[in-house]
Amino acid sequence: ASDLHHSCQWGSGIRWGDGPTDTGMQRLALSEDDKSVRDWFIQTMKDLKCKVTVDEMGNIFAVRPGRRADVPATFIGSHLDTQPTGGRYDGILGVLAGIEVIKTMNDMGLETEGGVGVVDWTNEEGARFPMSMISSGVWAECIPLARAHNLKEVPTVASLPTAASAPETMKSALQKIGYLGDIPCSYKSTPMAAHFEVHIEQGPYLVSANQRVGVVTAVQAYRWFRLNVIGRDTHTGTTAFEHRADALYAFAQMMVRAREVAASKGCLASVGIVEVKPGSVNTVPGEVSFSLDIRGPETKLVTEVEKELRTDFDAIAATEGAGIGKPCRVEWTLDFDSPAVKFHEDCIDCVQQSAQAVVADASVADTKSLVRTIMSGAGHDSVFTSKRVPTSMIFIPCKDGLSHHPEEFSTADDCATGASVILQAVVRYDRK
Amino acid sequence: ASDLHHSCQWGSGIRWGDGPTDTGMQRLALSEDDKSVRDWFIQTMKDLKCKVTVDEMGNIFAVRPGRRADVPATFIGSHLDTQPTGGRYDGILGVLAGIEVIKTMNDMGLETEGGVGVVDWTNEEGARFPMSMISSGVWAECIPLARAHNLKEVPTVASLPTAASAPETMKSALQKIGYLGDIPCSYKSTPMAAHFEVHIEQGPYLVSANQRVGVVTAVQAYRWFRLNVIGRDTHTGTTAFEHRADALYAFAQMMVRAREVAASKGCLASVGIVEVKPGSVNTVPGEVSFSLDIRGPETKLVTEVEKELRTDFDAIAATEGAGIGKPCRVEWTLDFDSPAVKFHEDCIDCVQQSAQAVVADASVADTKSLVRTIMSGAGHDSVFTSKRVPTSMIFIPCKDGLSHHPEEFSTADDCATGASVILQAVVRYDRK
Ligand SMILES: NC(=O)NCCC(=O)O
Ligand SMILES: NC(=O)NCCC(=O)O
Repeated sequence: ASDLHHSCQWGSGIRWGDGPTDTGMQRLALSEDDKSVRDWFIQTMKDLKCKVTVDEMGNIFAVRPGRRADVPATFIGSHLDTQPTGGRYDGILGVLAGIEVIKTMNDMGLETEGGVGVVDWTNEEGARFPMSMISSGVWAECIPLARAHNLKEVPTVASLPTAASAPETMKSALQKIGYLGDIPCSYKSTPMAAHFEVHIEQGPYLVSANQRVGVVTAVQAYRWFRLNVIGRDTHTGTTAFEHRADALYAFAQMMVRAREVAASKGCLASVGIVEVKPGSVNTVPGEVSFSLDIRGPETKLVTEVEKELRTDFDAIAATEGAGIGKPCRVEWTLDFDSPAVKFHEDCIDCVQQSAQAVVADASVADTKSLVRTIMSGAGHDSVFTSKRVPTSMIFIPCKDGLSHHPEEFSTADDCATGASVILQAVVRYDRK
Repeated sequence: ASDLHHSCQWGSGIRWGDGPTDTGMQRLALSEDDKSVRDWFIQTMKDLKCKVTVDEMGNIFAVRPGRRADVPATFIGSHLDTQPTGGRYDGILGVLAGIEVIKTMNDMGLETEGGVGVVDWTNEEGARFPMSMISSGVWAECIPLARAHNLKEVPTVASLPTAASAPETMKSALQKIGYLGDIPCSYKSTPMAAHFEVHIEQGPYLVSANQRVGVVTAVQAYRWFRLNVIGRDTHTGTTAFEHRADALYAFAQMMVRAREVAASKGCLASVGIVEVKPGSVNTVPGEVSFSLDIRGPETKLVTEVEKELRTDFDAIAATEGAGIGKPCRVEWTLDFDSPAVKFHEDCIDCVQQSAQAVVADASVADTKSLVRTIMSGAGHDSVFTSKRVPTSMIFIPCKDGLSHHPEEFSTADDCATGASVILQAVVRYDRK
């Protein structure tokens, strides 16, 4: 846990309390702060006698060798990048727990059959480059390398005062901080026996039920879109409502509708980024682009929400501007698609057994009840590793279920529990 | 008219047709392009033997002397700044018509009692610095100089690639282009006998009724606000709708409501600028700030709309986040307030008589019907001059009533009519 906060010196964000660690994080992928923490991670792993490699997506793999050189290592992975107003646990915990596991193994002189690795996946958040889990996606050969390399940063980042004059691509950003490695980014070049990940839940179930560990069996589906609404610029003071094709008014109705439709199907729909043009108090906006994130427990539910919204958004656009025969139009671009995932039975078993073992000495009558199976609402790199190798995850509780917020918090105890469970899970898997 | 397009070489904007003048304008106040057109304006007026002065707000006054040095000049004024996606007529026509009037007077050797002046008012649009008509407002001593000098540019401009690293204030921007004059900005230092302004209508009444001239008798009221909605950042994938305090969802409902309320009272309500933070696809926005422009034919109607929206927005904010006991909050800041205005009878009479005289030779039976009185939906510098000196305005038709759009257009004939009417109006007023 002290290492965790140590690693947060690079990119510490909004302060919310007086304590030395009472800040959030702002460590966007491939920023200078991300470079610093990567450098630190590599040095730490080398000091722990791991072999370190970096691939074409900047993924960093550090392996503690096992007895046998002919079998791939079992990996512990997560990410060191954060949201612009993120916290100290999302992703960071997973990598730091990996370091902790390697340290403990070294201390105990524990030998494994295959090696044990720790991986820092690049741009998991999708906050700077708008495809989450993109680099595990390339590794899994689910996302083409060229598409990932050419992906541009989002406008909010591109407009930061420190930003380059033109939006960076992932490739240029990788080059800039010296993390464009030469190993192909593929499960074929960097094979794994399995992938385990410990993460804060980011939701309210464990914390509100006073449970200690979530055995993650599945991840819900999600799809990210960029939408463009095109209307007509005009004067706010002289243009009657009937004479407007107000792209922003159309957007507002779309956002309200999106929640209605998603809620009706037990799904979520969210808008995080909005750009309004030309951006003048007294000009009715002629163009609005926005991000839309649709999620649901089943892929087909996400498809249903998308379908209904396509129809509804068209209808909203068609109405706004109809009075002047110049209705708004709306265009959809799919940025990212992650169908629902089920994790591997073997990995789930290892996590389940390890979790029970770790909570067994808790001072409650029924320790079984401290562990539950759970579905993840968020995406994780484990989603993509699961396409190629046995995978599962461990959740620990976080305060108020709050994440993607500077005040994101998990107790040192819970973090330690997570690290213990993943250590045992990896050892159990290695012995199978 | 050729001078008009000549002056549009500085800051010409979005191209919409093939002709040499088929572009819009992007000449934000106090930009490099604004400096260039100001330099040109001053040189032109000096060549026409006018005396030129610049005040502390960068307003440029050029005066052609009359017989008597002891009476103030009658002014023709408007502005050379434009919207980010503006056209070639809004404001520009008014200044260029002034130049035309001086040229004609010189050519005819016409002597006047008092002098005749042309004024270019700074930042009339309010597009870069979010108070429209700010510099005529300071001149009228309705807006304190310090408030104007300290006003910051809007975020959309501040984030342009060419922008300074910190948002500019009006004072720093004036200094930067060398237009911070040393004459006090006041009607006491630069007195006027009267102020006339010719402008495109920016609305559909003249053009749709095939009328040639609008005699402007009044200007509707408007008020500009900046609103801040504060909610809570959180994860889009793991946070149920009931657990959100989504500042953007609250905004969307507010915008929909604003139109409803405004429409119910014959008013307008418009949002032109929206900033969403932190601006990440998978973070529910915790903060949204936006501009709100409320207009109506009577000041008290604008007050009513404001009052109702304050109540409704509070209710919307209170609902979003209520489920977690952390409802959104909304804060209002008044940026600009312009009550409804009635112009001066004497000036209106001069315009009315001049307009009738100018259209008298049109080849229609009833030339009277080519002229109508009209209320302005937009604000103009004449609003502030009217607080101190007799004032009125002349409207000419523009295509589709469209303004604050690159395709804004008026025919050369209509522009010439406007110039003729204002020439006659000034001479008539001088002779009163
Ligand atoms: N765990 C996490 O926050 N991942 C980011 C991808 C997502 O939006 O679910
Ligand atoms: N005429 C004009 O567009 N003025 C700008 C101020 C306003 O928004 O009415």
